[in-house]
Amino acid sequence: MSELHTEHREPAAPAERSDSAANQLWGGRFARGPAAVMERINASIGFDCRLAEQDIRGSIAHARMLADRGIIAGGDADAIIAGLTEIAADIAAGRFAFKVELEDIHMNVEAALAERIGAPAGRLHTARSRNDQVATDFRLWVRDALDRLEDGLKALQTALIERAEAHAATVMPGFTHLQSAQPVTFGHHMLAYVEMLGRDRSRVRDARARMNECPLGAAALAGTPFPIDRWSTTTALGFDRPTANSLDSVSDRDFALDYLATAAIAAVHLSRLAEEFVLWTSDQFRFVRLSDAFSTGSSIMPQKRNPDAAELVRAKSGRIIGHLMGLLTVVKALPLAYAKDLQEDKEPVFDVDDSLGLCVAALTGMVGDMTVDQVAMRRAAAVGHPTATDLADWLVRALGLPFRQAHHITARIVAEADARHTDLGGVPLAAMQVIEPQITAEVFDVLGLDAAVASRTSLGGTAPETVRRAAAAARERYL
Amino acid sequence: MSELHTEHREPAAPAERSDSAANQLWGGRFARGPAAVMERINASIGFDCRLAEQDIRGSIAHARMLADRGIIAGGDADAIIAGLTEIAADIAAGRFAFKVELEDIHMNVEAALAERIGAPAGRLHTARSRNDQVATDFRLWVRDALDRLEDGLKALQTALIERAEAHAATVMPGFTHLQSAQPVTFGHHMLAYVEMLGRDRSRVRDARARMNECPLGAAALAGTPFPIDRWSTTTALGFDRPTANSLDSVSDRDFALDYLATAAIAAVHLSRLAEEFVLWTSDQFRFVRLSDAFSTGSSIMPQKRNPDAAELVRAKSGRIIGHLMGLLTVVKALPLAYAKDLQEDKEPVFDVDDSLGLCVAALTGMVGDMTVDQVAMRRAAAVGHPTATDLADWLVRALGLPFRQAHHITARIVAEADARHTDLGGVPLAAMQVIEPQITAEVFDVLGLDAAVASRTSLGGTAPETVRRAAAAARERYL
Amino acid sequence: MSELHTEHREPAAPAERSDSAANQLWGGRFARGPAAVMERINASIGFDCRLAEQDIRGSIAHARMLADRGIIAGGDADAIIAGLTEIAADIAAGRFAFKVELEDIHMNVEAALAERIGAPAGRLHTARSRNDQVATDFRLWVRDALDRLEDGLKALQTALIERAEAHAATVMPGFTHLQSAQPVTFGHHMLAYVEMLGRDRSRVRDARARMNECPLGAAALAGTPFPIDRWSTTTALGFDRPTANSLDSVSDRDFALDYLATAAIAAVHLSRLAEEFVLWTSDQFRFVRLSDAFSTGSSIMPQKRNPDAAELVRAKSGRIIGHLMGLLTVVKALPLAYAKDLQEDKEPVFDVDDSLGLCVAALTGMVGDMTVDQVAMRRAAAVGHPTATDLADWLVRALGLPFRQAHHITARIVAEADARHTDLGGVPLAAMQVIEPQITAEVFDVLGLDAAVASRTSLGGTAPETVRRAAAAARERYL
Amino acid sequence: MSELHTEHREPAAPAERSDSAANQLWGGRFARGPAAVMERINASIGFDCRLAEQDIRGSIAHARMLADRGIIAGGDADAIIAGLTEIAADIAAGRFAFKVELEDIHMNVEAALAERIGAPAGRLHTARSRNDQVATDFRLWVRDALDRLEDGLKALQTALIERAEAHAATVMPGFTHLQSAQPVTFGHHMLAYVEMLGRDRSRVRDARARMNECPLGAAALAGTPFPIDRWSTTTALGFDRPTANSLDSVSDRDFALDYLATAAIAAVHLSRLAEEFVLWTSDQFRFVRLSDAFSTGSSIMPQKRNPDAAELVRAKSGRIIGHLMGLLTVVKALPLAYAKDLQEDKEPVFDVDDSLGLCVAALTGMVGDMTVDQVAMRRAAAVGHPTATDLADWLVRALGLPFRQAHHITARIVAEADARHTDLGGVPLAAMQVIEPQITAEVFDVLGLDAAVASRTSLGGTAPETVRRAAAAARERYL
Repeated sequence: MSELHTEHREPAAPAERSDSAANQLWGGRFARGPAAVMERINASIGFDCRLAEQDIRGSIAHARMLADRGIIAGGDADAIIAGLTEIAADIAAGRFAFKVELEDIHMNVEAALAERIGAPAGRLHTARSRNDQVATDFRLWVRDALDRLEDGLKALQTALIERAEAHAATVMPGFTHLQSAQPVTFGHHMLAYVEMLGRDRSRVRDARARMNECPLGAAALAGTPFPIDRWSTTTALGFDRPTANSLDSVSDRDFALDYLATAAIAAVHLSRLAEEFVLWTSDQFRFVRLSDAFSTGSSIMPQKRNPDAAELVRAKSGRIIGHLMGLLTVVKALPLAYAKDLQEDKEPVFDVDDSLGLCVAALTGMVGDMTVDQVAMRRAAAVGHPTATDLADWLVRALGLPFRQAHHITARIVAEADARHTDLGGVPLAAMQVIEPQITAEVFDVLGLDAAVASRTSLGGTAPETVRRAAAAARERYL
Repeated sequence: MSELHTEHREPAAPAERSDSAANQLWGGRFARGPAAVMERINASIGFDCRLAEQDIRGSIAHARMLADRGIIAGGDADAIIAGLTEIAADIAAGRFAFKVELEDIHMNVEAALAERIGAPAGRLHTARSRNDQVATDFRLWVRDALDRLEDGLKALQTALIERAEAHAATVMPGFTHLQSAQPVTFGHHMLAYVEMLGRDRSRVRDARARMNECPLGAAALAGTPFPIDRWSTTTALGFDRPTANSLDSVSDRDFALDYLATAAIAAVHLSRLAEEFVLWTSDQFRFVRLSDAFSTGSSIMPQKRNPDAAELVRAKSGRIIGHLMGLLTVVKALPLAYAKDLQEDKEPVFDVDDSLGLCVAALTGMVGDMTVDQVAMRRAAAVGHPTATDLADWLVRALGLPFRQAHHITARIVAEADARHTDLGGVPLAAMQVIEPQITAEVFDVLGLDAAVASRTSLGGTAPETVRRAAAAARERYL
Repeated sequence: MSELHTEHREPAAPAERSDSAANQLWGGRFARGPAAVMERINASIGFDCRLAEQDIRGSIAHARMLADRGIIAGGDADAIIAGLTEIAADIAAGRFAFKVELEDIHMNVEAALAERIGAPAGRLHTARSRNDQVATDFRLWVRDALDRLEDGLKALQTALIERAEAHAATVMPGFTHLQSAQPVTFGHHMLAYVEMLGRDRSRVRDARARMNECPLGAAALAGTPFPIDRWSTTTALGFDRPTANSLDSVSDRDFALDYLATAAIAAVHLSRLAEEFVLWTSDQFRFVRLSDAFSTGSSIMPQKRNPDAAELVRAKSGRIIGHLMGLLTVVKALPLAYAKDLQEDKEPVFDVDDSLGLCVAALTGMVGDMTVDQVAMRRAAAVGHPTATDLADWLVRALGLPFRQAHHITARIVAEADARHTDLGGVPLAAMQVIEPQITAEVFDVLGLDAAVASRTSLGGTAPETVRRAAAAARERYL
Repeated sequence: MSELHTEHREPAAPAERSDSAANQLWGGRFARGPAAVMERINASIGFDCRLAEQDIRGSIAHARMLADRGIIAGGDADAIIAGLTEIAADIAAGRFAFKVELEDIHMNVEAALAERIGAPAGRLHTARSRNDQVATDFRLWVRDALDRLEDGLKALQTALIERAEAHAATVMPGFTHLQSAQPVTFGHHMLAYVEMLGRDRSRVRDARARMNECPLGAAALAGTPFPIDRWSTTTALGFDRPTANSLDSVSDRDFALDYLATAAIAAVHLSRLAEEFVLWTSDQFRFVRLSDAFSTGSSIMPQKRNPDAAELVRAKSGRIIGHLMGLLTVVKALPLAYAKDLQEDKEPVFDVDDSLGLCVAALTGMVGDMTVDQVAMRRAAAVGHPTATDLADWLVRALGLPFRQAHHITARIVAEADARHTDLGGVPLAAMQVIEPQITAEVFDVLGLDAAVASRTSLGGTAPETVRRAAAAARERYL
């Protein structure tokens, strides 16, 4: 049984002194230790511990390069790399105790290294600063997050395409303004989301390509006099090229903004599908039944099957948009180069990775597990004269009327059907001919739902054969 | 030495089944347990455990009312209250193990109660739903957060007023467009922030008064047929009145939006003061030196004294604004009544309480600890002809010139001073008289910094005596 | 027939010189005129012409005070006031030509005054700056906007209360998670919005009270040496008190932020009602039919009745939230005192006043004009076992079962009803007794829609008599 | 002299009837005309008149395709194209009167066409809907906006690179935390922005490539039964391919979101440079003097040279971020397909095009016109022991000390310099040797500003020769 111990959050105490000795890292000249509130606002280890693997990967590449360039001794590099590898294993195994007074992941790892290997640890930070180090770590992390996101989006596309193939001919109402407009197929509807997610994946790839530059070697902000080889660490860490300007390298958080913007647009897409699930599972629609796995009940209303997961997906778009807004505002008007403000870059990104990952997984599950109610869909598709456009188009095609005139005639026939409490197919030919004498009995061929759907064979249209071709093309393009 | 164990975050596994039995709370009709991803997206106990104290307080008030109204037996109520009190003590002492599979704080507490007192626990939820329960809990929490915020803002005002009193006559440049405009006093500048925070506190109080209505008794959404007494729980929980409409009661999150909007505006004020600290501690300004407690060093540049805390305060305004945006977007276009989307209300509020609390505390510490460099301020105040306006005003007052004409004459004297590489007081009378023959030697009385400052005695102006009166008034009004 | 001539927007030409002479207002020392792009980015007359009436009102109060205090001659003040009054009339009549090269409304008015009355015009700006002038003008404008907003909200409340009174007993489904939960009345639903709007009005009043301070007399940033009487202009302009600190007076835009935050929350409320209109007018719900006046048709689908206005109201919440976001970000991290950034305060506020005003008016029209389909509502209310909670509550009240146990029994009876394809009232007593032997025939009394609704008489509940009392109370409180 | 007539904004009158006849376009079945408020909220011609050129271009391509496919007669297409061409010319010449009662640009153009060419005009809308029409028009417009943005960014890069070349060796302080950290060159600093803008341009190109799909032919939402050729219009309008799904085609606004997200990140970059201009032109920095063309004066302080344009650029990032926020929120949770909410897509995009265009042009002008004060920069660069890192690096390189030990020694030498009120080069060798006996006189070689700068030859570093190479590479890559 999983357990979650209560958090102990102490109230912030203004300017109370911390007991810890003056900070070991930069405290040489400081007579007093930082205030407790300072420690709390300044320390990032509570969240940047998630960068541990990336930090160690970066340090290993750096150490190896330093040795290759003769900046540190090969033996020192070996000791450093062995120590870091050991620390990485401990962290992965949950055996590592992070310390708040060491502020951040970088110092936690470096201090542990010093404990384990002694003097050579002090040489690791040669020709490097925390500024380029954290920029490198975080880029590596965001790159992984982009890859995770693309995988998740692809899985959701797969589930959607499978549904599209199965329901290429399942008629449902196509809505505009949430009013029944024209019949479409459920498969066609599924493929609309495949397109959205395809654009999301394209954004992910563009962001990945743009951010795949290695800032390591920018040092604090100005570069370094050590004869480093930036291409070496670049290659070792899987980057395409080193960044071109050291000031930009340490002050740039475009990669995080790109990630958040990409995530926000994707989340908006997911919120649209989530909204549809909420609608479709309502008593009024009943187009879809979610599996038990994705329904929840009510503590007071035993009959409820609530689409909680869909609602949460819908809502989390707000959270993700909020994080994008937050980071844009953080970076706004910051002069060069590094400012501590940039430490606020990580938590939104981490939270978006968690939240969006859950949203994508939940929707993939819902799409895969849902039961489609074809009868309810077809019944709904018949409501509201959905083939009125087909009638108008027929008037144009068969009688050669201008579209605008056909539209007006159709409107009068719709009114006639309403007056007769019937659908368009139920208006007698004679009654139609009162409105437009040229109408013939052939008009009835286009007034049925299946005929209407089947006729829309234009590229990207909803005809079942067209949808099947589109599904095949999507499979080819995206999976 | 404080330790922080690594988090274990498993990747979200789509649609993998949870091992836990079908949910105990609402699972009666559900054949299969929720998917693991569903459990992860749905469970709120990871954060709503922070509502434990409020949840128990609300339940105690509810149980007592149920017994008073004869809806449950007095003995059952006694058992419930005793059990809840014990649970509250365990949670406060960190002895309580929250369980993810029980989803939220409400079920964690209720399940623990059932374990401890057996059958009577099942009667607590009579005439109540999680919908009104969580609305009540969260309001209680936000009310506490508002009170904390007001206390914090008052403490910061206190620190500012103390500085204002000490520096009522300390001359510094008054900037517009970050250009030196007219001399002001540092005390005057401090009081500007006292006014902003005074408005923030007024927003806090308004929000508190508006939200102090008790939703308990709205039940799921429609009220209840049980003969409850809503005024009883209202009074017991310190609310001013019950909410007026049950649908609104369970779907309203205005109190959270009010809190976030209030926090966002306050955070923007804090970001302005933080920006000034960053400027003032720069080598170019040096108006202020932060204490060691609020300065940090650099891993690579040993000479640095960085205003990290000020930068973080500046940045956290972005985060807080982002949370406001997030929740506004969550609530946008939600039909009535309760929707699960509303579960996204808590994390932003909790994070803002933490973040803003730290910001207020950090600034209070910085203001209290800082060293003001009066010499640097005065030197800067003398740059850039800051008494040009005084010259123009003198031309109006002493010579009766229209302001616009006085402005043009002053501009010519400024140009003359620039040409002579001197300040306005350094332009000989004769040179001035070439520009405007009526100027007399009395003009030199208004060209000094202290004279300029002392002359601005209009209400709210920067004259030292005016600032001292304003500080006294602020002390009276705010402390 | 109204006409709208095409705008001519020239592309921005970088650094091209403007033909206009060096700016007349502050150009004394500047050798060259501003670049054309500078004129375009800097000029605010394109939008701040909306401040004309406020600007003139402020100037008249200022001139009168200057004369009262002997700072300018009474005759000059008379000439100024006469001139300004004439200009105000010309502007109101559309006879005034604003000039871009005069930058803003203040200089347009002052230049026109100089043209009309000559020399005395030059004395108006004594003891004043554009910084306190624009702060005053804009506060006056926002105060009017707040008053307009409150009037609009009250009109919408009136329409809602009238509907509530008429439909206090009209049964509709009460939704949670957009799933039918319990029956409620349409009147009850209407009153939920009355509560939201009541809170909005309370926010409007709080914002108005907080902002009703007069900044005039703060001058550029530091106050003035002229013996002005700030209480005189304060009173003349209907403010409650002068602002307390001159630096704050010219750099504060809290009143605009308060307005935008208030508007954003109100817009979110309106978006919820708008969403309901979109749902309710769909073929799937058909709870409501909008009047022709608030429906639009389709160019291609003649049968459509689209709720365009409701959709636009829903969407405009995004726009309004965006403007709040924008201004918070503008003000973030601005050091004191006035910065030109603050010129970005007006357009969002003007646009919100226009947009929100339209939204409120459109919803007021929709609520007033709509046709309620009671039959459709009642039919929908019967779907999905909406009285299951009533059954559970009966088990508690009549049989004394603990709520949790009653909930489980109810869930089993719901499953039984589903298996029999009937509603709860259609499950035979015997079948219920198989599940819980103590159930008697009296249970059927609570399983009807009207009985369920009528039973919820708790304060704020949905029983018709309770709703009628609530409507009367709302009328008393709000209208 | 340019004139701007006052706007006449009537207050919104709820539900007042419009005098106009029932809307000509879709009013067939509607008995009453739309309410005045409805007309006001619904009409888009006030802003979508900016789509005129794109609308006509799209219609011409559509008409030609219809004729090619035999759907309309060639003669009709010729008449349509001739009429449209004439209308386009009239609009471009400002001779066209748009009518509010015709709602939008599409109907304004179509109605004018009917007036001019009669019957054939009624055939233009065959196989098309306003839904795919507006999607096409707006994509064409956004594509042009992207191209304009890339051109503007390139011009700004050009100005920056020219400055970088001229100032490759101009020493200035490199800041972190706005504290002087290490000396850099002004050219290096300029190139940091070239990189940011390079990424912006890459975002523009990615967005353009992603959005360059033609939605024309999607019709209302489902495709069309007419035998249209979507590749024909696609090619005629310069798109790369037709969109793949008709539902997505009419409900997708990703292209607008991509544009706004791209613009927001670019605006944040510009805000950073603008912030630096505000700092650099302050009396405290004086690194740069803006030309008269980009400075403004004060109405009350004749000595001021305010960087208004820089402040406005800084502020407009807030506005642009706000528009992104707005549209994300508009699209959030919209079910498919077209909803009127999407009409809110245009104004933010138009305003961003205007605003961002001005910002880019203004900064290009400022960078091109500014005067760099090399003396002030060098003086500032000498403050605060900026070569402390060089000392530490020397200790590592020359003495083989571990970096962490070198850092501590350096900190002690810095303290010694402070105690002696000198810079690092002013600490006697003997005093250094007290701290670290191995130090030799060679250390003084690295303590000068020029030596420090020249030593940072690592790729992307600040050494003048490296900066020159980087400028050449940037010229190659970007111009």
